[in-house]
Amino acid sequence: MPHKDLLDIAALTREEIEHLLDQSAPFKELFTRSVKKVPALKGKSVLMLFYEPSTRTHSSFEVAAKRLSADVTNFDVAQSSVTKGESVRETVETLQAMRTDFVIVRHRSSGLPGVIAKLTKASVINAGDGTHAHPTQALLDAFTIKENFPNPAGKKVLITGDILHSRVARSTSCILKKLDLDVAYLGPGSLVPKVGPENIRRFTNYDEAMKWGPDIVYLLRVQMERQDVQYFPSLREYHKLYGITEARLEDIRKRGLYIMHPGPVNRGVELCDAVMDYERSLINDQVENGIAARMAVLYWLKPGGH
Amino acid sequence: MPHKDLLDIAALTREEIEHLLDQSAPFKELFTRSVKKVPALKGKSVLMLFYEPSTRTHSSFEVAAKRLSADVTNFDVAQSSVTKGESVRETVETLQAMRTDFVIVRHRSSGLPGVIAKLTKASVINAGDGTHAHPTQALLDAFTIKENFPNPAGKKVLITGDILHSRVARSTSCILKKLDLDVAYLGPGSLVPKVGPENIRRFTNYDEAMKWGPDIVYLLRVQMERQDVQYFPSLREYHKLYGITEARLEDIRKRGLYIMHPGPVNRGVELCDAVMDYERSLINDQVENGIAARMAVLYWLKPGGH
Amino acid sequence: MPHKDLLDIAALTREEIEHLLDQSAPFKELFTRSVKKVPALKGKSVLMLFYEPSTRTHSSFEVAAKRLSADVTNFDVAQSSVTKGESVRETVETLQAMRTDFVIVRHRSSGLPGVIAKLTKASVINAGDGTHAHPTQALLDAFTIKENFPNPAGKKVLITGDILHSRVARSTSCILKKLDLDVAYLGPGSLVPKVGPENIRRFTNYDEAMKWGPDIVYLLRVQMERQDVQYFPSLREYHKLYGITEARLEDIRKRGLYIMHPGPVNRGVELCDAVMDYERSLINDQVENGIAARMAVLYWLKPGGH
Repeated sequence: MPHKDLLDIAALTREEIEHLLDQSAPFKELFTRSVKKVPALKGKSVLMLFYEPSTRTHSSFEVAAKRLSADVTNFDVAQSSVTKGESVRETVETLQAMRTDFVIVRHRSSGLPGVIAKLTKASVINAGDGTHAHPTQALLDAFTIKENFPNPAGKKVLITGDILHSRVARSTSCILKKLDLDVAYLGPGSLVPKVGPENIRRFTNYDEAMKWGPDIVYLLRVQMERQDVQYFPSLREYHKLYGITEARLEDIRKRGLYIMHPGPVNRGVELCDAVMDYERSLINDQVENGIAARMAVLYWLKPGGH
Repeated sequence: MPHKDLLDIAALTREEIEHLLDQSAPFKELFTRSVKKVPALKGKSVLMLFYEPSTRTHSSFEVAAKRLSADVTNFDVAQSSVTKGESVRETVETLQAMRTDFVIVRHRSSGLPGVIAKLTKASVINAGDGTHAHPTQALLDAFTIKENFPNPAGKKVLITGDILHSRVARSTSCILKKLDLDVAYLGPGSLVPKVGPENIRRFTNYDEAMKWGPDIVYLLRVQMERQDVQYFPSLREYHKLYGITEARLEDIRKRGLYIMHPGPVNRGVELCDAVMDYERSLINDQVENGIAARMAVLYWLKPGGH
Repeated sequence: MPHKDLLDIAALTREEIEHLLDQSAPFKELFTRSVKKVPALKGKSVLMLFYEPSTRTHSSFEVAAKRLSADVTNFDVAQSSVTKGESVRETVETLQAMRTDFVIVRHRSSGLPGVIAKLTKASVINAGDGTHAHPTQALLDAFTIKENFPNPAGKKVLITGDILHSRVARSTSCILKKLDLDVAYLGPGSLVPKVGPENIRRFTNYDEAMKWGPDIVYLLRVQMERQDVQYFPSLREYHKLYGITEARLEDIRKRGLYIMHPGPVNRGVELCDAVMDYERSLINDQVENGIAARMAVLYWLKPGGH
């Protein structure tokens, strides 16, 4: 059954996820060609509605849409009457009346993209909503893992950091469980939720987590600008307890583990400088794969494209 | 005689207006197709010169230009040396030297687009200047009315609010008079100019205005950020005296009247929430028609396109 | 030998410079046609990375790239995590992972575009770095001079103003020397470096400099927002000592000299209002030629295009 929107990984079947990951590969292959563009979405319009700024996610969607030949327009919410008290409903009715084909939304309120999706015929893609979901991040993460583990079922991924407030943790662990990977959380007790999926192990101690034997260490970004900082004594302390220090990187290298991070990294906090040159760091692959995965999503949701 | 610029509705003949309205319909029809784009302005460049921010008008022109396959560049005036004291003449000479085909200008000074038009060979479109004119708003309003009244001559439009400072009131009443509609103004005595066109009736009392028997009630936006607020005791008072309250909406529904508003609306001021669901509200049609009308203008002014 | 990047005029041979100037002419010719666009860079992506704002240079590159049919994306550095302490290296690794073909960089640190060029496979174009270089400005200046002096060798160019801090002075005098023009500097003693190229004459007195017999007077912009102001008593004093006053313009007209300025001008400082109408002012030609010269650079660096 075709989907109008992509709001949450939880709404996708395993088959749909596999299809989107399979579709990402040929789009990535396109980037190695001289003309990095296909006419798939020519004449379609994409509207960027970013209530929360994000240079990387914004650029990634914008480049993805342009490589599909869509027309991209920024709806400059910061400048707009939204800030003058206009309701989201009025903004969405405006977008709807503009007959835009896609709306890419980022907002600090969990669930807002879903509200928007109900109000418009356009395909809505959630580019991150509050602590709820970030489905395209999950897809690019899964695609990056599959590039390195073509049969990822049973592989172990240790997600580290502020699990409690992280939409990345939520969406990425959801997709990995759907693909039968084994997921565990590591972080300060105050930031690792005690309730939640039964089948995800929790660790609060780095060495304990390492004994579990992960194949991939996935580091979440410490949200300096958000509330994270109050949950642990200091960034230095965080680095010491949960960061990839040089000593830990040595151990990770010996074990042959992969490192992932959704970016942008706080060097000296989640990881030490040396990780930037670590041969099994997948951080840059994640950026490139983000464009490919978002092209796959745009193409998949393409109105009339099913 | 072909026009280089669109600065004011007053400069157009009735035939030219009818032509632009007729041309808007096929562009609107395009929005229902899968490929919402025509190559009409391929290779033409459009420069957006918005001294006053406006998300909606900006997006509307941008989408209109892209659907005609033009290339759109923002001339980021806020960042530019304009604010460092550069004269408009120097900015325009720069645009002229860039050989841009169209300049879309919004500025708080009445008449500035006309000054720019004299300084450049590019086609200048006035996207709103001070209290002077907003010709594309007038065209989209007239087009929206014609969709509902194919023979609009003699129909009665009641324009309500701050007539005195409104370029929308000025341009829209101008186009409606040219098309032989009957126009009246309603608003606080301090905001309804006593001088002006002889053939426009003035009301300061809502019930009086209703006795006149309008077919369409056109609500102007209360400009919170401008001087409006000092002209009446409070927003609540404004709503009570001139807004579409729930009781008035009931009466409007019974009479079968249409409601228009240039957007964005201040809910609870010009109109109550229930208007958003009123079946004869044309507010969203106005947004969609704005893109179509602007495409018609861009196409009509197309250099060498006459 | 093909170049990946354009960082500095000093890195180009005279033949390469001549080639780029020759290539600029047909691009300029394109601007007089109805369709101002060629498909030369279709499917290539250009990323604008402007750490220092500049409306004109930004627009010029953007229009140049679009006239070559490239896709342009702004990497909104002001909003980005760069300002949250992200290192340039991480930003560049992100751009690299996005597989962008060109990166256009402006930064207040001299040498930064060179650092970026080493970190990425993309072609990097320096759009101005600190007091170091502004190579596309130099190319457009040389191209503008050649339009008026087809055989410019031996022609005399007097560069006037804050030579010490000016990347324009540095790059433009470099290209002119390579093309065998005669260059001299004029400015306050504190702003004309005593060391530097042997073959450039220095003047601190306007009348002395005029006796040298320049063919072109090239006025540098007084950087109000930078440190310039502390180097001379007042703007009025600067205008009196080094500006083109009405009396001096009369003399310049009699001698038939050309006037150039990289823009935007401070009227009443570098030049009086009357210069705007001076028939041998090349200021607007410089703007137009900027787009042509930048197209030539983008086309020349085009990956696989040599």
